Amino acid sequence: MSAFRELSTSDGADLAELKTNMNVDYVISYHIPPDKAEAEAGFIQLIEALTRVGLASEVRHGNDSSVLVFVKVASNQYLASQIYRERLQDWLYGVRASAPEKDVTKAFENEPVTEAERLRLVYLLITKPKNDGGAGITPKSGQWKQVASIFPLHDHSFNSSWIKTWSTKYFLDEVDLDNIRNKFGESVAFYFAFLQSYFAFQFAPAAFGFAAWLILGRYSALYAFANSLWSVVFFEWWKKKEVDLAVQWGVRNVSRIQHPRTRFQWDHEAKDPVTGELVKYYPPMKRFKTQLLQIPFAIACVLVLGALYIFCFGVEIFLTEVYDGPFKSYLTFTPTIILSSILPVLSAVLTKFADILTERENYQTSDAHLAGLVRKIFVINFITSYTPLFLSAFVYMPFGNLMMPYLSIFTATAKRFYPDKSMTTQEFRINPDRLKGQMVYFAVTAQIVNVALEFVVPYLKRVAFKKVESVQAKRAASQDGEIIYDAPEERKFLQRVRDEAKLEVYDVAVDYREMVVQFGYLTLFSSIWPLTPLSFLINNWFELRSDAMKIAMGSQRPIPWRSDSIGPWLNALGFLSWAGSLISSAIVFLFGGESEGPGGDPSNVHVVGLLVTILFAEHLYLGTQFVVRYALGQMDSPGLQKERKERFAMRKQLLEETLGQDAMEAAVPPTPKTGEKITLVALEEEARRLSTSSGSGTPEQMFWLRQQGMDETIAIGRKLISQSKPRNNGKSTIQATFETVEEAVVDELLSSILSLRD
Amino acid sequence: MSAFRELSTSDGADLAELKTNMNVDYVISYHIPPDKAEAEAGFIQLIEALTRVGLASEVRHGNDSSVLVFVKVASNQYLASQIYRERLQDWLYGVRASAPEKDVTKAFENEPVTEAERLRLVYLLITKPKNDGGAGITPKSGQWKQVASIFPLHDHSFNSSWIKTWSTKYFLDEVDLDNIRNKFGESVAFYFAFLQSYFAFQFAPAAFGFAAWLILGRYSALYAFANSLWSVVFFEWWKKKEVDLAVQWGVRNVSRIQHPRTRFQWDHEAKDPVTGELVKYYPPMKRFKTQLLQIPFAIACVLVLGALYIFCFGVEIFLTEVYDGPFKSYLTFTPTIILSSILPVLSAVLTKFADILTERENYQTSDAHLAGLVRKIFVINFITSYTPLFLSAFVYMPFGNLMMPYLSIFTATAKRFYPDKSMTTQEFRINPDRLKGQMVYFAVTAQIVNVALEFVVPYLKRVAFKKVESVQAKRAASQDGEIIYDAPEERKFLQRVRDEAKLEVYDVAVDYREMVVQFGYLTLFSSIWPLTPLSFLINNWFELRSDAMKIAMGSQRPIPWRSDSIGPWLNALGFLSWAGSLISSAIVFLFGGESEGPGGDPSNVHVVGLLVTILFAEHLYLGTQFVVRYALGQMDSPGLQKERKERFAMRKQLLEETLGQDAMEAAVPPTPKTGEKITLVALEEEARRLSTSSGSGTPEQMFWLRQQGMDETIAIGRKLISQSKPRNNGKSTIQATFETVEEAVVDELLSSILSLRD
Repeated sequence: MSAFRELSTSDGADLAELKTNMNVDYVISYHIPPDKAEAEAGFIQLIEALTRVGLASEVRHGNDSSVLVFVKVASNQYLASQIYRERLQDWLYGVRASAPEKDVTKAFENEPVTEAERLRLVYLLITKPKNDGGAGITPKSGQWKQVASIFPLHDHSFNSSWIKTWSTKYFLDEVDLDNIRNKFGESVAFYFAFLQSYFAFQFAPAAFGFAAWLILGRYSALYAFANSLWSVVFFEWWKKKEVDLAVQWGVRNVSRIQHPRTRFQWDHEAKDPVTGELVKYYPPMKRFKTQLLQIPFAIACVLVLGALYIFCFGVEIFLTEVYDGPFKSYLTFTPTIILSSILPVLSAVLTKFADILTERENYQTSDAHLAGLVRKIFVINFITSYTPLFLSAFVYMPFGNLMMPYLSIFTATAKRFYPDKSMTTQEFRINPDRLKGQMVYFAVTAQIVNVALEFVVPYLKRVAFKKVESVQAKRAASQDGEIIYDAPEERKFLQRVRDEAKLEVYDVAVDYREMVVQFGYLTLFSSIWPLTPLSFLINNWFELRSDAMKIAMGSQRPIPWRSDSIGPWLNALGFLSWAGSLISSAIVFLFGGESEGPGGDPSNVHVVGLLVTILFAEHLYLGTQFVVRYALGQMDSPGLQKERKERFAMRKQLLEETLGQDAMEAAVPPTPKTGEKITLVALEEEARRLSTSSGSGTPEQMFWLRQQGMDETIAIGRKLISQSKPRNNGKSTIQATFETVEEAVVDELLSSILSLRD
Repeated sequence: MSAFRELSTSDGADLAELKTNMNVDYVISYHIPPDKAEAEAGFIQLIEALTRVGLASEVRHGNDSSVLVFVKVASNQYLASQIYRERLQDWLYGVRASAPEKDVTKAFENEPVTEAERLRLVYLLITKPKNDGGAGITPKSGQWKQVASIFPLHDHSFNSSWIKTWSTKYFLDEVDLDNIRNKFGESVAFYFAFLQSYFAFQFAPAAFGFAAWLILGRYSALYAFANSLWSVVFFEWWKKKEVDLAVQWGVRNVSRIQHPRTRFQWDHEAKDPVTGELVKYYPPMKRFKTQLLQIPFAIACVLVLGALYIFCFGVEIFLTEVYDGPFKSYLTFTPTIILSSILPVLSAVLTKFADILTERENYQTSDAHLAGLVRKIFVINFITSYTPLFLSAFVYMPFGNLMMPYLSIFTATAKRFYPDKSMTTQEFRINPDRLKGQMVYFAVTAQIVNVALEFVVPYLKRVAFKKVESVQAKRAASQDGEIIYDAPEERKFLQRVRDEAKLEVYDVAVDYREMVVQFGYLTLFSSIWPLTPLSFLINNWFELRSDAMKIAMGSQRPIPWRSDSIGPWLNALGFLSWAGSLISSAIVFLFGGESEGPGGDPSNVHVVGLLVTILFAEHLYLGTQFVVRYALGQMDSPGLQKERKERFAMRKQLLEETLGQDAMEAAVPPTPKTGEKITLVALEEEARRLSTSSGSGTPEQMFWLRQQGMDETIAIGRKLISQSKPRNNGKSTIQATFETVEEAVVDELLSSILSLRD
């Protein structure tokens, strides 16, 4: 925990062992299996594979069952050629507007290699397949199953200044995001950019939410409309912003360059119709059939989680609203205990299932795999997050009274346990504040708990593991009487690396998921409690910082991948924004007005009104979305402008290069005189040829010889014009008159209408 | 009418005057205004402007108030440079995958200039602004308002063989479409491709429509579902096909190359942030404000046309179902007469209004202008086409009985006209066959009338105008005693050109509109009469041929514009497909079942059921669309494959060119030995440098000097491994045990579930 502790103190960055990474690019944690011969053979293969691609390696003791291999680039030429090749590929795929300089040295002078670029390419060098110029090391799979992890080392002085800066400023600016991008790659930078935009945008709903809370009260239609409009504007705006950022970061279209998934299993090899090479092929229809399993999967999620929720819900209702026997104050926690013990397990099982299903779908590229996984994770999260509110709003409140007879099961059960005592029950009454109470829980309590967990749990976990480990190490040492010593000048550095090796791999999807779920609460249910956006706003200020700390201290430094958007989460946001129009309109209709809800009796619900409201709200939403999308599409943005500028410059340059100076001049139209000359020369020659060969030409030739040159054409034309007797516009009188009248009437009418506007 | 007559006979193509176009590229019809001095000055300017861009011209007598200027390319070099430049531009905009050959002569040998390409570029030469290398002639506007039209001449031998081929074959193939593309450009070819695809796709609904008619009867939910599914599949398929065709025709992304609109009016000149040049600027917000006028425009359309329809509807109901007095059989036609006399006028006024509104929106490019106009035209057509059926289905049938009291207005009016006679009225009864009758009218009668009109009206019009003109010409000749004679060998050719000058300009939007409206009947209302698709299928066979004849004989030859899709009509199709899910589900719910409709009484309508049906149908539609889009997206297509192939070849070539043979070889990773050598050399040198300079290096240098070379790393690694005491996977025992159990349980569970599938 030295890194954590020292980072927490303000002068942590001055400590020597934090200042240097010993020029290490990557650390490979190599796990030692019980069979030591196997371990040694694998280790030799590893070092050889690394050396083969121009990487230098040093090995140090890791822990009792692992060694740490430190890797840095030895052959800078080879890395440079890889980077140059990558930049060229970027250009060919349309990621860059212009090709890199042909002179390699100059190319690197003009565009120096950033840390993220270097780390990304070294990582690719280690992991790319051999036939693609890499070492082909794939952690935890196949031949390399002993390679536990490959990670770069944190830049602790950057991290501590990063956290310090962010903790003391209210708003992040572009420089902050650029720093993240340079250190952790565009993939992580996009998350922070999204979160920052989302945070900034939330000031609007926080303000009108607060106003609505003061003036309009709960379940306000106006608030729901404003909130839905906000979600549309934010979503459409972000889609634009995303493109903009991608252009500014030079990663637009980078998703076109797909990294093959190492675990892809092919059906057979087939000739690629495009490249002509043999490629691994998996029939898409076979995949599509597997994908159809998502439907039963979603249904299973709904049933399993729904059943759990309904059970807990029933218990809760019974205990809080009906039961009035002994231990009531303790028993009230029963459903919470059931839920918080079973839900994580169920979630884990379902997530694992989602994992396996996605694995079975066998995507060819990492991006497609991620998208497939995110779809399923989103379904699970949608159900676990929103079911309690769904049940309260659309089951408990309208049908509560009908549930009474079923609650007698619980009464009977309870009576069986306490047959002797006469158990008292109170009369069941719908609790109209239940919905609001739940919403407050999700908007405030859960968020606070969550932020706390993000700090505390990893901390405790690491402390505990460290304790266990040091005890085990001591015991092992006392048994064998032998301790491996590090060189004294490296000890602290190695200790830090060992700490980092134990950290979790940072997965940006986890953070996206959290924000997307929050966005869902906002769009779907925030009309229940209009202070929700304000609460989220405050939470997100901390969220931004706590996520930064999670990366800086709680995780291994992420591989700086590139990406050109927030990826599959965009669809999830769009879906929630749309679903918000349905759910929030239904809630406002059901609970708006004096009575605040149907009070447990479905006959209080005006079904036609409800359906009309939903239909209307949804189509209003779709219409608004169309207009907002169009209006935003009309606006220019710095990123797109930059892109156009680059493309224009590139086009101009290429045109000049290809056409050459001569062609550029020849493109100026011939002046009248030269034009005339061409015509005359051509015609005179043709006339000569005609007279010498046959005496008279073809009709085509004769046709074009009647008027030799411009002057004759003009002369004849003038004669024809002077002979003509023009009438009204060349049309017959009746027709012309009709058209004139018609046009005059229409014009008159229209201009008078349009003038009303000015 | 000579061309028409001769084309109709089978040997028309053999006639001499049809065989040659005298090498003419374009004919300019120059109108002579009453002021002859002005006419002559304008004419001189015209000829000079043409000559300046390397075009030769001949002038001939047109009619009494016009002369015809024949234009052909004199300076082939200049045209070639323009074509080459255009091809280069195509490449730079990503329309072509590869750049044209650098050697110009070779470039034209490899890709000869097609007729469409030549004509398009000559037209651009005539109309492009002067600073862009053109003559800047803009027909009917500004300086060139006397230029009535610029048109190419029909290739009559092609036309007659075209019509002959199409009349004798059932299906069009790719060669047919390619021919159209080469003659009339991609813009027209896309229309025929769309119509042909639509026609081919209609076999499916025609077949199950026929089956539904036999077995299921009217208002079948199954038919409505199948029909809606069909519309989704067709729409999504066409979006794919469109891209495919664009790739095959080499026009993909051609919409990126925008032609500036000549009538664009700028607010002020501003510096273009992209090119740095001064450009004409019109603030988009100002345009957006004008665009908002579309909303009152749409409302006005609904009100004006709605009022007309409701009035006629009332009259019709009264006359057919209530009135039983004298002249009933004649009076029945009253509403038809009112409608068919007022509707065209109203439509014309609204279309004119749409025109003016679009003009006011002041778009910068022709494409944006067209899209804006099409949106409005679509609104007008939507209302004029579908209102009668809307009124019958959703007003007459459910609310018919409530309308009775209002019909007494007509009774009173009628009684005022015939106070003496005792007017008999029959009792009002809802006519359940009304809806079907209307649908049959729209699906059969109207289509037949339409095809007939497309042939007969233009024919009659031209015959009449020609009569009037020849009478006028004779009268003029007898007054002045002077007739202009053509040279005898040119007479027939000139007569043909004069005929073509009188023809209308072909507007592909008119044909698209017709098909889109038909598609709307299919998706919205065809469940009323399941034979509708069959009827449309038959109609479209003729439509394809009649449209071909319209181009070949009824219109001037179109300018062969390029395009990469059916443009704004795609959105209209998507909208109708979606609206179909709402309307047809409502119709099926209202009229399905035994009673066939609510019989005029709204209390027969189960409103909740109706709303639930609509909501369900719409979301089923959206879900299906999502799945179909995804599934189609997985499929490869020859066009996309071709594109990828070209891009791959281009990339490979460019990579080889840029990196050179050396770099390609250097990209092979260094072999173990060379890799080792680099490492060793680098390290030895470093060691030497260190020992000579300071005696001991920095910690970083020392870190990497501990293991000199691969062999030492391996040796130390093996030592470390042999010393280690590995435990379960490097994790603490408790944790490892827990994880193993958890994983085993989950894996067991999942594999047993998944194995059920196989």
